[in-house]
Amino acid sequence: MLRGTGDLGVVIERADGAVQIIEQQSRRSLATIQGMGDLSHASVVFSRDARYAYIFGRDGGLTKLDLLAQRIDRRILQAGNSIGGAISQDGRLLVAQNYEPGGIRVFDADTLAPLADIPAITSAGRPSKVVGLADLPGNRFAYALFEGGEIWLADLSQPRKPSVQRFAAGMQPYDGLVSPDGRHYLAGLFGEDGLAMLDTWHPERGAQRILPNYGRGQEKLPVYKMPHLRGWALTSRHAFLPAIGQHAVLVADRQSWQPTAKVPVLGQPVFVMVEPTHRRVWVNFAFPDNDKVQVIDTDSLQVITTLTPGKAILHMEFTARGDEVWLSARDSNEVVVYRTDTFEQRASLPARSPSGIFFTWRAHRIGM
Amino acid sequence: MLRGTGDLGVVIERADGAVQIIEQQSRRSLATIQGMGDLSHASVVFSRDARYAYIFGRDGGLTKLDLLAQRIDRRILQAGNSIGGAISQDGRLLVAQNYEPGGIRVFDADTLAPLADIPAITSAGRPSKVVGLADLPGNRFAYALFEGGEIWLADLSQPRKPSVQRFAAGMQPYDGLVSPDGRHYLAGLFGEDGLAMLDTWHPERGAQRILPNYGRGQEKLPVYKMPHLRGWALTSRHAFLPAIGQHAVLVADRQSWQPTAKVPVLGQPVFVMVEPTHRRVWVNFAFPDNDKVQVIDTDSLQVITTLTPGKAILHMEFTARGDEVWLSARDSNEVVVYRTDTFEQRASLPARSPSGIFFTWRAHRIGM
Repeated sequence: MLRGTGDLGVVIERADGAVQIIEQQSRRSLATIQGMGDLSHASVVFSRDARYAYIFGRDGGLTKLDLLAQRIDRRILQAGNSIGGAISQDGRLLVAQNYEPGGIRVFDADTLAPLADIPAITSAGRPSKVVGLADLPGNRFAYALFEGGEIWLADLSQPRKPSVQRFAAGMQPYDGLVSPDGRHYLAGLFGEDGLAMLDTWHPERGAQRILPNYGRGQEKLPVYKMPHLRGWALTSRHAFLPAIGQHAVLVADRQSWQPTAKVPVLGQPVFVMVEPTHRRVWVNFAFPDNDKVQVIDTDSLQVITTLTPGKAILHMEFTARGDEVWLSARDSNEVVVYRTDTFEQRASLPARSPSGIFFTWRAHRIGM
Repeated sequence: MLRGTGDLGVVIERADGAVQIIEQQSRRSLATIQGMGDLSHASVVFSRDARYAYIFGRDGGLTKLDLLAQRIDRRILQAGNSIGGAISQDGRLLVAQNYEPGGIRVFDADTLAPLADIPAITSAGRPSKVVGLADLPGNRFAYALFEGGEIWLADLSQPRKPSVQRFAAGMQPYDGLVSPDGRHYLAGLFGEDGLAMLDTWHPERGAQRILPNYGRGQEKLPVYKMPHLRGWALTSRHAFLPAIGQHAVLVADRQSWQPTAKVPVLGQPVFVMVEPTHRRVWVNFAFPDNDKVQVIDTDSLQVITTLTPGKAILHMEFTARGDEVWLSARDSNEVVVYRTDTFEQRASLPARSPSGIFFTWRAHRIGM
């Protein structure tokens, strides 16, 4: 059957090592594909033609899933313990970031054949876990070394001859993200306050420290779950950040990186995600508030609604143009779909312990 | 044959009323489909699943082209003289903007059945040409009335019961665009200097005048071709605008809309388009310089290269993540493909008098 791939997506069914293929417009599941291994903390990228989903599992599995044929096209075990991956600007390279062994590995996106292996060795000569991998223009990738305290910028424009630049970042980077234009790479620091930012248009300036009070601060608040940086919401004007250990979303100026506001919310935020229209920011929370979602108006900086979509809301994914948001309610065994403008629930789909939701529009964005 | 639709696109062959279907990754033509009518100034939008291209012709033709089956699925003549169209945020509505009769018409995106007809009547009671149509969040659309001197904001969330708000804009709006987040609608004015801007988050504030010196100015320079506003390049920091009648690209601050720089270029710019990475801006020119393209570095604001891709360069389209740009060289009967980082020519495809090039990633963006 002929079918466009522009409104497909996948839902991770973590407990079963399975992936549902969904169709956005009809809000229905097309198939469930088994055999993906350990999908805790799984991440997904898409081929340029939006036909294939690449699923990076926690056990080092890398699966190429054919969304049209609804079957696994290829699958390899590339590491012992992995924490996600990325795809190059030209769609030809896959990169996995690994905990065990550390470092990154590079694969051909068609065949999954290995092309390069770049260990992450600290200045003290020890291997390091890699976190916060993000694709950049020019088939470059940025990532951070947890034990190494560095940001690395790998140029894979010649994938068999990679070159790497290293930048001091700070203590224990734990996650990272790149701005939607692929310019600014930011790493959160577990071991100290503040964030490291590398302007990849000017690597000669090195990584700079921004938002020096961002973190757990002097009081060392209890943190129930480290927030996800990928959830950070960057508009052209503002950055919206989950305050660590606090019941608040921080707002900073995108140009100066100075904090400008703090929005009180009902719990410890995990994901803070902006709609593609930049009109509203959606926030989910750590336990015990993980059955709730709050929505912040980006103009008034006020919480405008509180929703209770289900039990254990783990992830949120917007449609490409932002008319809907899909949320995974793990302990309700459901994916629920809301309109973003009226907050009306439109549909719910059964899913077994759903976690991540990923739509094929990601094929067409940098840093996703 | 199973095929993802994420890297497809169309090339308008204006002289023949034909459309080529192309595949980006392989840089080749898949098919040429005839029978589209008058395709001068044709514009194209895509269905949410990226399977169908909707082609709005100058003769009022609206064609739904099936990119997978490679045939015309449906075709109607909806007006006598039309100047383009748009698709709603939810993908269910098509809107055509018309010169003759004026106004806009609304169609079901599946069936092309008419849903609404909204005449554009000036305050003096006369029909007006409509220009600058753009889709906004919430199934709203913004457009401008050339004779009416107004911006209209149409809410089609109930398509059979449309509601319209009207805003005074200035003399003879000739084109318009919306910012990538769907918030700010800008209309260029043919009859006077300056631009009209409507903040659609605050329509109660009305349309404001910005960049009061933008236009032909006191000297009334000869203008060989009015630039296309859709070509305007908006980054998170800057707007890059074709200076009207001058050999320059203007740079303005995105927040304050104050001019900040003027970049000399070799001719009168027509399209001024930013790469998805915001790293470079590509500029083509009116006759007699329409065989050249210049590239501006958005950081240094300097022209960094001048290319001669062919005769009569009419349009430019970037791949979704910006590794390539495709240019139509009408009088060379070619589409040429360049790498954006090295300016190396990668491929050329034969095409008969190609004009517009449109890739399916547009399905996933607002205001395209």
